[in-house]
Amino acid sequence: MIITVVGIGLIGGSMVKDMRRIGFASKILGVDANPENGQRALELGIVDEVATLKEAVSQSDLVIVSTPVDIVAKILPEVLDYVSPTTTVMDVGSTKVNICKAVENHTNRSNFVPTHPMSGTENSGPEAALEGLFEKKITIICDQEKSKPIHVALIEKMYHAIGMGIAYMSSDEQDHTTAHVSHLPHIAAFALANAVLAKNERDIIFDLASGGFRSTVRLAKSSPKMWGPIFKQNEKYVLESLDVYIDHLQQFRESIVKEDQSLMYELMENANRIRPALDGTASVMNKKEEQNIKLYTK
Amino acid sequence: MIITVVGIGLIGGSMVKDMRRIGFASKILGVDANPENGQRALELGIVDEVATLKEAVSQSDLVIVSTPVDIVAKILPEVLDYVSPTTTVMDVGSTKVNICKAVENHTNRSNFVPTHPMSGTENSGPEAALEGLFEKKITIICDQEKSKPIHVALIEKMYHAIGMGIAYMSSDEQDHTTAHVSHLPHIAAFALANAVLAKNERDIIFDLASGGFRSTVRLAKSSPKMWGPIFKQNEKYVLESLDVYIDHLQQFRESIVKEDQSLMYELMENANRIRPALDGTASVMNKKEEQNIKLYTK
Repeated sequence: MIITVVGIGLIGGSMVKDMRRIGFASKILGVDANPENGQRALELGIVDEVATLKEAVSQSDLVIVSTPVDIVAKILPEVLDYVSPTTTVMDVGSTKVNICKAVENHTNRSNFVPTHPMSGTENSGPEAALEGLFEKKITIICDQEKSKPIHVALIEKMYHAIGMGIAYMSSDEQDHTTAHVSHLPHIAAFALANAVLAKNERDIIFDLASGGFRSTVRLAKSSPKMWGPIFKQNEKYVLESLDVYIDHLQQFRESIVKEDQSLMYELMENANRIRPALDGTASVMNKKEEQNIKLYTK
Repeated sequence: MIITVVGIGLIGGSMVKDMRRIGFASKILGVDANPENGQRALELGIVDEVATLKEAVSQSDLVIVSTPVDIVAKILPEVLDYVSPTTTVMDVGSTKVNICKAVENHTNRSNFVPTHPMSGTENSGPEAALEGLFEKKITIICDQEKSKPIHVALIEKMYHAIGMGIAYMSSDEQDHTTAHVSHLPHIAAFALANAVLAKNERDIIFDLASGGFRSTVRLAKSSPKMWGPIFKQNEKYVLESLDVYIDHLQQFRESIVKEDQSLMYELMENANRIRPALDGTASVMNKKEEQNIKLYTK
């Protein structure tokens, strides 16, 4: 199967690496606005050829759009202009309502399957691409009734082949949920880094930073170019989750100021309820039947 | 050397495990208010005997007080009542001003060395004790001019032997710094867990939680019994750091509401400056001369 990856970075790069490894891809074409990224991806063996969007899409069975979400919304109509009836198009963006809106009236809308694989690292670019990044993680497929079944089927098969479970929901529910479990934690980490950097009178502060600090602040290393458009596109739900978060911080603050031990313990004990959710394997993954993963080659 | 550990949990337990492994300890006595903890520590081979505070301290060369910080402040005067001139006492609490105040006028104050090893996990109790927990991390020794040099020397030797670098500062500076790099990240994680738990309409939310969420929220699993007293004892600096944090979150919120891309990118790019601090080995550790670690046995 011939696959095009548009935007060869952490997610798209990791995805095609896996597809090549498991025999899902016979040839991988790369499209990138930055010629250096294309060159690096060739050198790293992530893609076989670099091509223009039109050249690449018109000869591909599957097109993965894995640019920052503002670019997805911008180029997706053009991608759909170039498809044949059997070309499947997917994106991997962290927001969905805005992206789907950009193509809602496109003649080839039903070739497109909006997805969001919930995996990543704080790194970006072709060098950040990793094999096995998606193993045992969950991907979301949105608004599947708007895509032709053959396209949804191919995407499901591909995600199962790279080891992911699949959750189905509307674009709106995905944006709402993702605001809480992904977008908010990024803002929390960016702000924590800024708060601690503001205090840094001596270099010593970072030497003292133990594993707990490193873990909490890790996402502050994330790419502004990727995250800026996400916060903008998902403004409504990002603000909702951020306001709930600030309110919980204010409650904690109040418990300290008022020396209200019972409130403080209640807040901490409630937070401790996150433990089984974090320690257990994801329950959807436990519940779903053992995937019968087959290799797909063409 | 005979060592007593008072409060056999994550930190004290891990510390004596290392001391036994490297031959620093010949015999380890355990003191714990909870008889079950003492029993578990015996079964796990962390301590050789369980004893009362008086029995244990009066026959020990080194006493490690590793209880929650409210208990440290309470029992430290009693520990110092039982020491001989050659008994060294240390604590490992995350706050220092309050603990030092509790013994500032004690006749044997100079036997006590206040320390804070910056390492840990979100788990607690004797089962949480780990070998090698302190390797290549930094410990703080506070107000060293108030301790007799022989006691400071023993503590330095012990920390070097378990692989730690040492930073020296006043109790006040330690409380101020630790508020930012340790206490604040814990509150950030507790509040994040609470915000996301409040949104949990479907179990699915935790299945979607990817590595980024897990990392950011990990500290929310921490023990309320340990952390409540820390936030109380370090109220002034915890509130200071929390207010700076909430202010940075509000700035981020404003950049989204006002669609002020340049402010948003400035905030994210500033936060990215944390990367070298997190990726590099701690600079103090790089700068200090290779430790000439010697085993100490008696």
